[in-house]
Amino acid sequence: MKNKKICLHSYPDNIPTVDNFSCQEVAVTPPGAGQVLCKTRYLSIDPYMRSQISGRHITASLSPGDMMMGETVSEVIQSNSEKFKVGQLVRCMGGWQEYSIHEPEALSAPITHAYPSYALSILGMPGLTAYAGLMWLAKLQKGNVVVIPAAVGAVGATAGQLAKAAGCIVIGIAGSNEKCRYAVNELGYDFCINRKTDHIAEKLEQYCPNGIDVYFDLVGGKLLHIASERLAIGARVILCGLVAEYNNKDRMAGPAPALWIKSRATVSGLVVYDFEARRSEFIAECLPLFAQKKLKMQEDISIGIEHAPDAFCKLMRGDNFGKTLVKVST
Amino acid sequence: MKNKKICLHSYPDNIPTVDNFSCQEVAVTPPGAGQVLCKTRYLSIDPYMRSQISGRHITASLSPGDMMMGETVSEVIQSNSEKFKVGQLVRCMGGWQEYSIHEPEALSAPITHAYPSYALSILGMPGLTAYAGLMWLAKLQKGNVVVIPAAVGAVGATAGQLAKAAGCIVIGIAGSNEKCRYAVNELGYDFCINRKTDHIAEKLEQYCPNGIDVYFDLVGGKLLHIASERLAIGARVILCGLVAEYNNKDRMAGPAPALWIKSRATVSGLVVYDFEARRSEFIAECLPLFAQKKLKMQEDISIGIEHAPDAFCKLMRGDNFGKTLVKVST
Repeated sequence: MKNKKICLHSYPDNIPTVDNFSCQEVAVTPPGAGQVLCKTRYLSIDPYMRSQISGRHITASLSPGDMMMGETVSEVIQSNSEKFKVGQLVRCMGGWQEYSIHEPEALSAPITHAYPSYALSILGMPGLTAYAGLMWLAKLQKGNVVVIPAAVGAVGATAGQLAKAAGCIVIGIAGSNEKCRYAVNELGYDFCINRKTDHIAEKLEQYCPNGIDVYFDLVGGKLLHIASERLAIGARVILCGLVAEYNNKDRMAGPAPALWIKSRATVSGLVVYDFEARRSEFIAECLPLFAQKKLKMQEDISIGIEHAPDAFCKLMRGDNFGKTLVKVST
Repeated sequence: MKNKKICLHSYPDNIPTVDNFSCQEVAVTPPGAGQVLCKTRYLSIDPYMRSQISGRHITASLSPGDMMMGETVSEVIQSNSEKFKVGQLVRCMGGWQEYSIHEPEALSAPITHAYPSYALSILGMPGLTAYAGLMWLAKLQKGNVVVIPAAVGAVGATAGQLAKAAGCIVIGIAGSNEKCRYAVNELGYDFCINRKTDHIAEKLEQYCPNGIDVYFDLVGGKLLHIASERLAIGARVILCGLVAEYNNKDRMAGPAPALWIKSRATVSGLVVYDFEARRSEFIAECLPLFAQKKLKMQEDISIGIEHAPDAFCKLMRGDNFGKTLVKVST
């Protein structure tokens, strides 16, 4: 049995291209004592991976030759552990490959709901990120004016829907008219600003005349500056992602601290791994919303592990639509 | 009776000089119905005044011709209000002048403790700033590693002593060896870094090998960047002053948000006026510390209102030593 895997081939200069990756085929080795062999069903493709390539992510740095890392929903196909049975679906860090071997502690509890791919988006890490940021850090309150850049990405789309469900006024920022229409018509955003064609500052003035209560930052860069100039008194800013700079060699400076003094902002750095222990709390809150169709997720699915580089480059160009996934097997 | 007052004469280009101010003499008018006439005892000279001149402070913008504003300890010398009696000392926004007239609501309750000038420092606004930042926003805990730039200024000196009294490890940053010695020998700082001659980053590595838990920022600029690179996980950053940029025309950018994500920092903008309602709580906590001599304040006192510009320029050059005050009358 062969295992196809995708490695980093060379460092991208800026936005990655498929040439920066290589595909290898190796034999699948049998799992050792106590270990579990998994077959990848879905691979999650996320912006943070660019940051791992730059050596700037807290989880790992990747060098040419290294296999790309990533979270997967995988099927147990051989188990030397009493804890897992063949046929069970689990969440794990399977990486960009078709098969992976794990210690049982590295696997999630079996996925029991009927939407396994959603364990990588709205009911998974992006969902937990959105929930932890809005509810636990920003302490979202009914009536808050919430602004979400990357409005239809995996984290942003969840955050937008959670904020609407909580009775907030929600303004998105996205990269195309199509995405903006989707944000308003499908995700329930009150307004969505096209960051490429609209005058963002003017639109924010128009939509948030009394300022922004919560800015859920996934992007950094200029948008963070523009939003920081329009915060309401007592605003909360969640710093969670820096897509705008992932492809740059240098880190961008932050907004002038004076803006955050003026608004008495509380600015919180969010790393989702810190909230792992509270994942079940989040799932318990979100499953009913999901059942009531108040939470949904557009998925942007490529088929076959060899298309993971394509999918990642598309995400980095902002050309994805919804949560980027690779369907690796059925 | 004549009232000498100091007005802004021209906008400073950078660090102000005495030429930017003018002194005028006008007749003292009698107080109107219900009003109170006060004679200034002490005028507080504070860094935020530079920000008022630049039009960037939340309280007011000053233009040439305007009298300089400022908090004073003043004596009631004529009262048309039942609430105040001649001879009482009060805190008020008397401004840079010898006499001021107020509505009774604009005066503090009479000062009853024996240290009236301290109502402008350790038991006044700078003290409340330090207390609110450390205790209410940063939720200081015993054993925290606390770094305080402007270590011997009015806010910094109070913060340093409060943090020591709370059982923290406290590192100051100051502008001369004399100030550093004072910080360690008199205020009880564990260490103090000379920002002009020491390698600040190296010293912080040495004194905070496990990172900074609380950074009480009064300065902004480069020091904020350097400190943000060395935060412990869960650090709190209090944004409270921007002395480093008060004399610049442009606002400086903030640290890279990535640093705050990495450390899961909570960054809070502090405006002391928001905590006015809790002033008595702060006084109740600090008076005993003060009585036990765990809180003291070096005062840098000039005599006569005509020396207020001098005192302010000295403060802006960083040449003051302790809380800058003008003794206007006895």
